[in-house]
Amino acid sequence: MRKLYVIGIGAGDPDQVTMQAVKAMRRAEAFFVIGKGAEKQELVDVRTAILREYVDGQHRVLEIADPPRDRAPADYTGVVQDWHDRRAVLLEEAFEQVDGDGAILVWGDPALYDSTLRMVERVLDRGRVRFDYEVIPGVTSVAALAAAHRVVLHRIGEPVHITTGRKLREEGLGPGSTVVMLDGECSFTEVPGDDIHIWWGAYLGMPDEILIEGNLREVEKSILERRARARAEKGWIMDVYLLRSE
Amino acid sequence: MRKLYVIGIGAGDPDQVTMQAVKAMRRAEAFFVIGKGAEKQELVDVRTAILREYVDGQHRVLEIADPPRDRAPADYTGVVQDWHDRRAVLLEEAFEQVDGDGAILVWGDPALYDSTLRMVERVLDRGRVRFDYEVIPGVTSVAALAAAHRVVLHRIGEPVHITTGRKLREEGLGPGSTVVMLDGECSFTEVPGDDIHIWWGAYLGMPDEILIEGNLREVEKSILERRARARAEKGWIMDVYLLRSE
Repeated sequence: MRKLYVIGIGAGDPDQVTMQAVKAMRRAEAFFVIGKGAEKQELVDVRTAILREYVDGQHRVLEIADPPRDRAPADYTGVVQDWHDRRAVLLEEAFEQVDGDGAILVWGDPALYDSTLRMVERVLDRGRVRFDYEVIPGVTSVAALAAAHRVVLHRIGEPVHITTGRKLREEGLGPGSTVVMLDGECSFTEVPGDDIHIWWGAYLGMPDEILIEGNLREVEKSILERRARARAEKGWIMDVYLLRSE
Repeated sequence: MRKLYVIGIGAGDPDQVTMQAVKAMRRAEAFFVIGKGAEKQELVDVRTAILREYVDGQHRVLEIADPPRDRAPADYTGVVQDWHDRRAVLLEEAFEQVDGDGAILVWGDPALYDSTLRMVERVLDRGRVRFDYEVIPGVTSVAALAAAHRVVLHRIGEPVHITTGRKLREEGLGPGSTVVMLDGECSFTEVPGDDIHIWWGAYLGMPDEILIEGNLREVEKSILERRARARAEKGWIMDVYLLRSE
């Protein structure tokens, strides 16, 4: 049975790749790169650097175009599911062109706000290509954020809530500490209170890494400004942050 | 300025170490091993295997005995803080015996339910040894659990709540999906409801890895039995689980 490896490669620093990931990459004949067209050159470069350093160069790289989707739909879950379906068909077609094992490299860890595993399950459900798949865990951007700030995610024995910008706006902070991902709208500005601390990071592990930390009300303007400037200069941004009462 | 590296080494599989961790380990002259006496031989073996494979053998390993502590105190936070203080003094004394950089290897990631960073901050606060420190993020047991079960931690766009067995008993499930760590008491049996799914894993990434998944009410007895048997046979257990409504 052919294998498909879904490999977490860390948050943006090529050195965050694990030995387990390297070994899995070496078993793959083809790498499926999803949505490369929409991806920023710096991210493509990190992935290329990883492959160049650890794989012998005999592999194929098959690009899978990312189908367009509505980024602010009324029915968020429905639109995302439909988008996953269309991507699944494209992955299926790509895997049919390969004889040996395949691999998909995922930023961070495949279990956290990444759609690759749902797509792979959909391909299996369709039943046209048969394969087994294996998941290689990776360093998440959450761990990379905490490491960069040298902070523990929670107080002693307290919980950590990991959520999205959308859910933060709808539901507010979780119990304990709150980590926010997928927040293109700086939702931290809508969190009320004068006693919240924020640890914010963008481009974690990359040469342009930015870290800002402090009382939320005191630093939120700096974050907004630095974020807008960096995004304008580079054309993209990836950021994540931790919030906790002081 | 001397450096102390706090290095996440993954959840139990020696291959989960990152290239970044390997590079930091190679810079260290001494490794501080905390509480080795209390640790199980298999865990010591994994760490020894990592050092043997990636470090040249010119390093020192300094053991720091783990001070005893009350495991079920009324004042949990107070007892843990006092314990951290006593460990800080021991780390300080060990670092004073070393000329170059030091390193501490941490299971999983230093930001998640690990006390090393708090201990390091205490040593710096005491002001007797001067050094800079750097945190290297690692693959968490949460990511290892999800990878082993090939599951995404949350539903699309939903939050993940990471908590302890103690907090699960006190506060119940979080919003969205709930990951439970540090649960020596099988607190999942106290979660009410017939529609909860559990993904449970023990000794993740190690040769004796055990995975059980299913409706919580249907599989909780198997987990209790397998867990008790494995713990009795091996003398120790490390486990973690994910809960989500079906």
